[in-house]
Amino acid sequence: MGVEAGCIGIVGLGLIGGSIGLDLRSHGWEVQGLVHRKQTADRALARGLVSAVSTDPSCLQRCNLVVLALPIPALLQPDPALVDALPRNAVITDVGSVKQPVLDRWKPLHPRFVASHPMAGTASAGVEAGQCDLFRGRPWIATPDAGTEPEALARVQVLATQLGSHWFTAAAGQHDQAVALISHMPVLVSAALLRTAGDERDPEIRRLAQALASSGFADTSRIGSGNPDLGVAMASSNREAVLKALAAYRWSLEQLEDAVLRNNWDQLRRELSRTQALRPGFLQASSELSS
Amino acid sequence: MGVEAGCIGIVGLGLIGGSIGLDLRSHGWEVQGLVHRKQTADRALARGLVSAVSTDPSCLQRCNLVVLALPIPALLQPDPALVDALPRNAVITDVGSVKQPVLDRWKPLHPRFVASHPMAGTASAGVEAGQCDLFRGRPWIATPDAGTEPEALARVQVLATQLGSHWFTAAAGQHDQAVALISHMPVLVSAALLRTAGDERDPEIRRLAQALASSGFADTSRIGSGNPDLGVAMASSNREAVLKALAAYRWSLEQLEDAVLRNNWDQLRRELSRTQALRPGFLQASSELSS
Repeated sequence: MGVEAGCIGIVGLGLIGGSIGLDLRSHGWEVQGLVHRKQTADRALARGLVSAVSTDPSCLQRCNLVVLALPIPALLQPDPALVDALPRNAVITDVGSVKQPVLDRWKPLHPRFVASHPMAGTASAGVEAGQCDLFRGRPWIATPDAGTEPEALARVQVLATQLGSHWFTAAAGQHDQAVALISHMPVLVSAALLRTAGDERDPEIRRLAQALASSGFADTSRIGSGNPDLGVAMASSNREAVLKALAAYRWSLEQLEDAVLRNNWDQLRRELSRTQALRPGFLQASSELSS
Repeated sequence: MGVEAGCIGIVGLGLIGGSIGLDLRSHGWEVQGLVHRKQTADRALARGLVSAVSTDPSCLQRCNLVVLALPIPALLQPDPALVDALPRNAVITDVGSVKQPVLDRWKPLHPRFVASHPMAGTASAGVEAGQCDLFRGRPWIATPDAGTEPEALARVQVLATQLGSHWFTAAAGQHDQAVALISHMPVLVSAALLRTAGDERDPEIRRLAQALASSGFADTSRIGSGNPDLGVAMASSNREAVLKALAAYRWSLEQLEDAVLRNNWDQLRRELSRTQALRPGFLQASSELSS
């Protein structure tokens, strides 16, 4: 499992790390993987996610770019052996969905750290989940601050665009509030919907609700039934922004409820016409807005 | 546009009425359509939704089964000319998503009325929307009461099963509460999500939210951006059940918010594990529960 000079390191070979590895391999790059378990290492190599893989952090020694494709908790409390093994002259980036806490944690740990977030995913996880072209056409946001080295940032941009992503940059705090609005808070909104239907006390109504639930309910409840650990990681690492988004959400829902309470159907129609008009702005907007 | 004795009448040839017509035609039935406008009549005939069509209610004279495929407001305030034209010995049914108000309205109007609700739909509407097999594998619920004639109920069941639906019956009030839980209230929950994101005051955060919104947000916000008139019809005709479901929903969301507020991540993980376990019960359950 030897490694060439100048290869790209990927720490963690789950959905995101594995998909990055597959794409980089297809472009002919040398990719060095680092995972926890021997069994994962074997599968990663068999699936072609990496050209070399190890469970020993020292394998990253000759990488000039390292992608930390780790869950948020592992990013925020990184293994000291990993931090020690990262080459000081390499560019280090991450893929976490929360940026301010990651930036705060990693700035003191490595001089060439770039906080970034590829917005892509599927319901799958683990070493079998990685797939080609996961990032094509999707946004990849970096959140540099005054201390971020421009050359390191440019290196991550080359990676993102090589993988077909739409690149842009934002302030970490604004990124986190935006992600709370369109991803982290909606997980709780969706979960509460399942909870409400599941908590219905009348067994006949509950049975009917289950029988009658159609694609509309399936869609609205999908993200509320995802990986609980991921939901907790989002809410705990982006707590302030999630609470702010929840408060704004409660206010919005109250306005609609108020129209129903007051039998103000003109008002409700206006509100629903507005939400109908709002949605296209949130669909496939990344390609337009990244330019 | 002559009509044979014993044909089936369909009043309204939008998505539901047109789809029923297409399926019945493919089974060789004679189908008499009734619509408001000559132009719709011509398109319905050209599309093969019906074997005969008219804008004159008297065309229903020789039908022994009439399906009122009308929007809720038109069902609750029916055209007197339509009511007068319905043969007294025909079975009359409807397809509205709210049942108690429809049953209350129609019981005094026709002795053989059967309230029913095929649970099927797409985002399309109008005379071009009807499609084959829309009802196959989907639930079709009738909500008879003590005054419903058993023979009339059986006649609607034959229709529903002929179209491939899973047939079952429920009390109208329980149907309406179940539908509020899994369809009407979720429309408002989903609309409030779009409203929250659209109302974000910081233009940079709003721009980022639009750019970063992915399939999760698209799914969760889909039913909140549907036909505003349909949303108003649901909320106004099923107001009590919708308000009750909204109150239960607010309580559920508060429980999740409370876990975030108190940094109680074990509690949040338990809640999200529970919602993860709940969802499969609401997917494709109709085929099992109708038996």
